Amino acid sequence: MTRPTIPTDSIRIFCPGTIANVSCGFDVLGVALAGVGDHMLISKSNNKGVRITKITGQDLPLDIYKNVAGVAALALLGHLHSEAGFEIEIHKKIKAGSGIGSSAASSAGAVWGINYLLGSPLSPEQLIPFAMEGERLASGVAHADNVAPALLGGFTLVRSSQPLDVVTLPSPSELYATVIHPQIEIKTADSRRILKTNIALTDGITQWGNLGALVAGLFKEDYPLIGRSLEDVIIEPIRSILIPGFDTIKKAALEAGALGCGISGSGPSVFAFSQGKQTAQKVAQAIKAAYEPFDIPFELHLSKINPQGVCLDNA
Amino acid sequence: MTRPTIPTDSIRIFCPGTIANVSCGFDVLGVALAGVGDHMLISKSNNKGVRITKITGQDLPLDIYKNVAGVAALALLGHLHSEAGFEIEIHKKIKAGSGIGSSAASSAGAVWGINYLLGSPLSPEQLIPFAMEGERLASGVAHADNVAPALLGGFTLVRSSQPLDVVTLPSPSELYATVIHPQIEIKTADSRRILKTNIALTDGITQWGNLGALVAGLFKEDYPLIGRSLEDVIIEPIRSILIPGFDTIKKAALEAGALGCGISGSGPSVFAFSQGKQTAQKVAQAIKAAYEPFDIPFELHLSKINPQGVCLDNA
Repeated sequence: MTRPTIPTDSIRIFCPGTIANVSCGFDVLGVALAGVGDHMLISKSNNKGVRITKITGQDLPLDIYKNVAGVAALALLGHLHSEAGFEIEIHKKIKAGSGIGSSAASSAGAVWGINYLLGSPLSPEQLIPFAMEGERLASGVAHADNVAPALLGGFTLVRSSQPLDVVTLPSPSELYATVIHPQIEIKTADSRRILKTNIALTDGITQWGNLGALVAGLFKEDYPLIGRSLEDVIIEPIRSILIPGFDTIKKAALEAGALGCGISGSGPSVFAFSQGKQTAQKVAQAIKAAYEPFDIPFELHLSKINPQGVCLDNA
Repeated sequence: MTRPTIPTDSIRIFCPGTIANVSCGFDVLGVALAGVGDHMLISKSNNKGVRITKITGQDLPLDIYKNVAGVAALALLGHLHSEAGFEIEIHKKIKAGSGIGSSAASSAGAVWGINYLLGSPLSPEQLIPFAMEGERLASGVAHADNVAPALLGGFTLVRSSQPLDVVTLPSPSELYATVIHPQIEIKTADSRRILKTNIALTDGITQWGNLGALVAGLFKEDYPLIGRSLEDVIIEPIRSILIPGFDTIKKAALEAGALGCGISGSGPSVFAFSQGKQTAQKVAQAIKAAYEPFDIPFELHLSKINPQGVCLDNA
């Protein structure tokens, strides 16, 4: 990862979608997608502060105090005691409330882009806390589950939020994600509320055994091990109730050869991991065929793992 | 790992002590020690079946149905439909009830040695279920927490017991264990009984975040990360009550530079991991000085991680 040293005055960047709560990694494990994401245009301005000049693709506020990108940008500039000015255009491809990190993409993109234009005084790791301020606006909690993979790329594990301790993990080269986004609304707050505050110790043991094995599988590029470890005995049985057709999607994905399948973030999106693009495509077709009878509009994404996080467009 | 092809008639083997329940890895993560272990002499005999001819160092039954080595050996021979006969001598250095895998060393040694003398029809991984039968005799539960690292060496993660799924993890080359064994008795059954059957979801998240990060730390040889991840918010706060002076030991170890410190198995032994032998020695001295006032006899072990598990003596 080389840091640019000669900033230009305006950059166009790609801000990846992300899957948080990857199966057994509830609240700790996230991953960045290569084929799903927003674009942002960030430019230096002679007027101090931050302005959001344009948003396409979604109906979101231009008010910098009500937009996650604005809030994250201000947090960064405040930390840097910067007198610089910036204009931001946001071109949303990730729908808000999809469960694939729409707010994180904007928050991460804003701080990454501004940091770049300032000559990269901070590393991507150091940008995470400012992007988290955008998440605080979006969900009430300054969590790093999505902004960490959005900024660092690949799989990231948030070992601790307070103090922040993010561990980067390898991205097996043949791993593909198939993501279905049923166009229904699930509020993150609601999907949190239905969780139990206590869990059985035996389920906890199963969960951390799976997470430890999943991390090992990523390092070893052991796809069958990754598949066996993609099991969530605690959150999925509860949250999947909020996603019509979840069991049907999962069954179709696994039968088509997916390594594993689970809820993306707090839903309603559902992801499946596969080894190889061909299998991921088969999985996409199987999910499509299985979900059409549900009469719920949906989008399907097929994506490699994004190893780098936010980046210059066409870089 | 090369398998021997020309067995001899009699072998002398080293059977390592093991630490199970490594901090955040309760019930899943174990590690083999290089500097602590039993010795066994296993010989072919013309008389079908298994005889334990001698035990030194501990007062244990020679009756093969009451000795973990006998039970494990019979389970293996039964599986192989073998008509062969074996004599076993066991020279115990690991005290029973110490919390560093005394029964596992004997169970693992018996099946490893007999398998070797039969020309290694099974891999070390395949021997695990038979060694587990020894654990069933010892504790009532056929768990793999100790026999898996005893047979495979290094760190092992038991992702699942049913069906058995054991993942081998790397052993960072500079990692040393300091183990103190206070000579008090804690029955495994008792230390299990005091655990709560339910835990807070938030504690579960902390625990699996730590375990995922610990696994990553082992792969990355990132000693500070290993240190930060060696935290157990669920079991240690309860079980440590049964170990007089646990907090004193832990404080002394950490102040002397240990990466982390926790209960070995279900106690009463306590382990500390350090980077480098020199630090591990300092930690041993600090623990010794801190524990002497408690007026409880104790043994101290200092050991590298054992990367290979049971092996031929002087091999």
